[in-house]
Amino acid sequence: MIPCGIPYIFGTRGSCNKNLIPDAALEKNSIELLIDEVTNIDTESKTITTKKGEKTKYDLLVIATGSEPLSPPIPGSDKQGVYAIKKDVAHLQKMISELDRSKNVVILGSGFISVELAEECKKNRDINITILARSNRCLRSPYDEGFSTEAEKCLVDEGVNILKRETAEAFLGDHSVEKVKLSSGNEIPADMVILGIGCTANTKLAKMAGLELGPTKGVAVNRYMQTSDPDIYACGDCAEKVSFFDGKPSKLKLASIATTEARIAASNLFQTRRMNSGVISVYSTMLNDHAFSGAGLTEHQARSQGYDVIVGEANSPNRHPGGMKGMAPLKVKLVFEAGTQVLLGGQASGAKSAGELINAISACIMHRMTADDIAQFQTGTHPGLTASPIAYQLVNAAEMAIIQSRK
Amino acid sequence: MIPCGIPYIFGTRGSCNKNLIPDAALEKNSIELLIDEVTNIDTESKTITTKKGEKTKYDLLVIATGSEPLSPPIPGSDKQGVYAIKKDVAHLQKMISELDRSKNVVILGSGFISVELAEECKKNRDINITILARSNRCLRSPYDEGFSTEAEKCLVDEGVNILKRETAEAFLGDHSVEKVKLSSGNEIPADMVILGIGCTANTKLAKMAGLELGPTKGVAVNRYMQTSDPDIYACGDCAEKVSFFDGKPSKLKLASIATTEARIAASNLFQTRRMNSGVISVYSTMLNDHAFSGAGLTEHQARSQGYDVIVGEANSPNRHPGGMKGMAPLKVKLVFEAGTQVLLGGQASGAKSAGELINAISACIMHRMTADDIAQFQTGTHPGLTASPIAYQLVNAAEMAIIQSRK
Repeated sequence: MIPCGIPYIFGTRGSCNKNLIPDAALEKNSIELLIDEVTNIDTESKTITTKKGEKTKYDLLVIATGSEPLSPPIPGSDKQGVYAIKKDVAHLQKMISELDRSKNVVILGSGFISVELAEECKKNRDINITILARSNRCLRSPYDEGFSTEAEKCLVDEGVNILKRETAEAFLGDHSVEKVKLSSGNEIPADMVILGIGCTANTKLAKMAGLELGPTKGVAVNRYMQTSDPDIYACGDCAEKVSFFDGKPSKLKLASIATTEARIAASNLFQTRRMNSGVISVYSTMLNDHAFSGAGLTEHQARSQGYDVIVGEANSPNRHPGGMKGMAPLKVKLVFEAGTQVLLGGQASGAKSAGELINAISACIMHRMTADDIAQFQTGTHPGLTASPIAYQLVNAAEMAIIQSRK
Repeated sequence: MIPCGIPYIFGTRGSCNKNLIPDAALEKNSIELLIDEVTNIDTESKTITTKKGEKTKYDLLVIATGSEPLSPPIPGSDKQGVYAIKKDVAHLQKMISELDRSKNVVILGSGFISVELAEECKKNRDINITILARSNRCLRSPYDEGFSTEAEKCLVDEGVNILKRETAEAFLGDHSVEKVKLSSGNEIPADMVILGIGCTANTKLAKMAGLELGPTKGVAVNRYMQTSDPDIYACGDCAEKVSFFDGKPSKLKLASIATTEARIAASNLFQTRRMNSGVISVYSTMLNDHAFSGAGLTEHQARSQGYDVIVGEANSPNRHPGGMKGMAPLKVKLVFEAGTQVLLGGQASGAKSAGELINAISACIMHRMTADDIAQFQTGTHPGLTASPIAYQLVNAAEMAIIQSRK
């Protein structure tokens, strides 16, 4: 399964078969594939054993066992109709069938997977979808308030219900779930519940091999992605992470982070070449055809970490003049440390190009660019592709932050 | 007039009125506008005089007089039906009318303006358009051969004729142009000729003020955008430029460069704050609904400047899985100096997001990022917005260059 594509099998794509990663790229590169379940790792004899009994020797081993959905200790979680999101074709296909029969679906959690699922479950179905958001807004961790509000509006416009400061106390019903009892005491009908409250590192094998775990219960790794056994590397959702900013443990799990870590691990296998500089958190999503993206610290997070910040925003059409085909507004917010004016984070919303723009912002964060660096870097612009050069959002947001710093 | 929007008045937009920059932003910021022609600058008394006889004192002056189209010394250039592209509403509106009556249009030059014009003139008109390209390919300066070929295919698919290694020897006809005599000796019919062969700095006023000119005949400026008179700044097409790479004079004239220079000049007026690091050359365009963009040196240019280079290319859909809405291929080519692996340039084509991606590449060039920096910087990806994280073009092109360097 393509992990980020999972929400889209419920609506846009309609089937798990349309969300598979082909093995062709591996085969083309003469990579031998053994598809089986590893049941044991013997680090002394450097041998792995599979369920079918096959034994394979290794010089170096990479553990990339990913994550498993969190199961909250909510009474009634074992009832029929309550689903976690597993990267498993049979399980997901069963969810699609159940969804097609459902009238009232409750989604626990208000992060990316939950909001994307809410939109997709609604697509082409006459169905009530309710999101339970524990906090006072959706997508609280990647976005500041303005962007959360905009995202919630997209969902509400599509007919999704959002209950804020609410969570599930219990799932009620006989065999199958029928109602959700909320923390407020209210009860709402539900013939299907989807748990979108995150996931935890899958470390079963690593533990079996005697590898150390880290503070967030991922496989402990150094900056080269080596585990406590120097001949075993780990990367992706199963591996422990630290923040790019404060270096503290991070629970973030994203396919793009997994891929970056895989590149680092692979580069270091035969010769140490790359250091993992920690998680920047680069996200994007799409709600009601609006793109939303974010990288690094939000203003809220930066202030919580004790930063004095300056902030700049710019909002203009992604075409010039505005009447050109494909016109959509594109808003950018940048957050800088006030003294050094080093970029800490950015958020963007609106036009689809926000999905590519956030990667430019990530590169700027990683290379500790300042507001002035960004304000005067050279951009290419075109009537049919971007804002005009006098309204280019990334540059103008940096200028606005500088202006604010001088007030 | 929005300068980059000029080609689009001939087709997509249909009128000059739809391509004007409003004064509102200036008025909103309490900037006093005096619309008149400056006829004299007296640097002794620091006074400018306008055509209407108004005299205005200045402490600091910024000259941003732009450029004028080049008029080639081709016999018959003064005939009716032969047009340069001036940023002038009456002139451009006359061109639109003439175009509506024309059957055979010949465009001199094969740079951005020429190819965009060719496409736009063809739009909704039953008309023959012929581009005369002096060299063996269109868009030779911003792109390497593969990208030029792709761009030419877009034009040919739209029915535009391209004559390579050809230029005009003479424009034939009585009052009006009727034929173009080519350098090959052939003659082709033409009831309209458009000169898209570039422009030259408009330095009339600067010369009148006794300011020094530079080697490309622009107003000479230092890295703070100050002219030879420290109280007068110049920026944009009228100002002399140097390359970011070799520091040599550059004739490049782009709206986005002009804007960056304006930001530098404005920042330095009251306190020196910014240095112009020279022209990187960031472009984008769109042909037959395909985006094309480029930043920095092409492989061809880098080799011409004596660099030993490594090159990486990556081509994959801008969505994942490929069946997601809006899917288009997106190709990226990166050029690095072989020893340091510092990024020298990039080119992209295909999906519209190439227009935003090139700005990420520009930021990477400006901050002298290496192939390894780019290969491991963290990206955000989303099924509906970008390639998958394992196929993300910018990162994979860097990886391919590294792999090449180890062969």
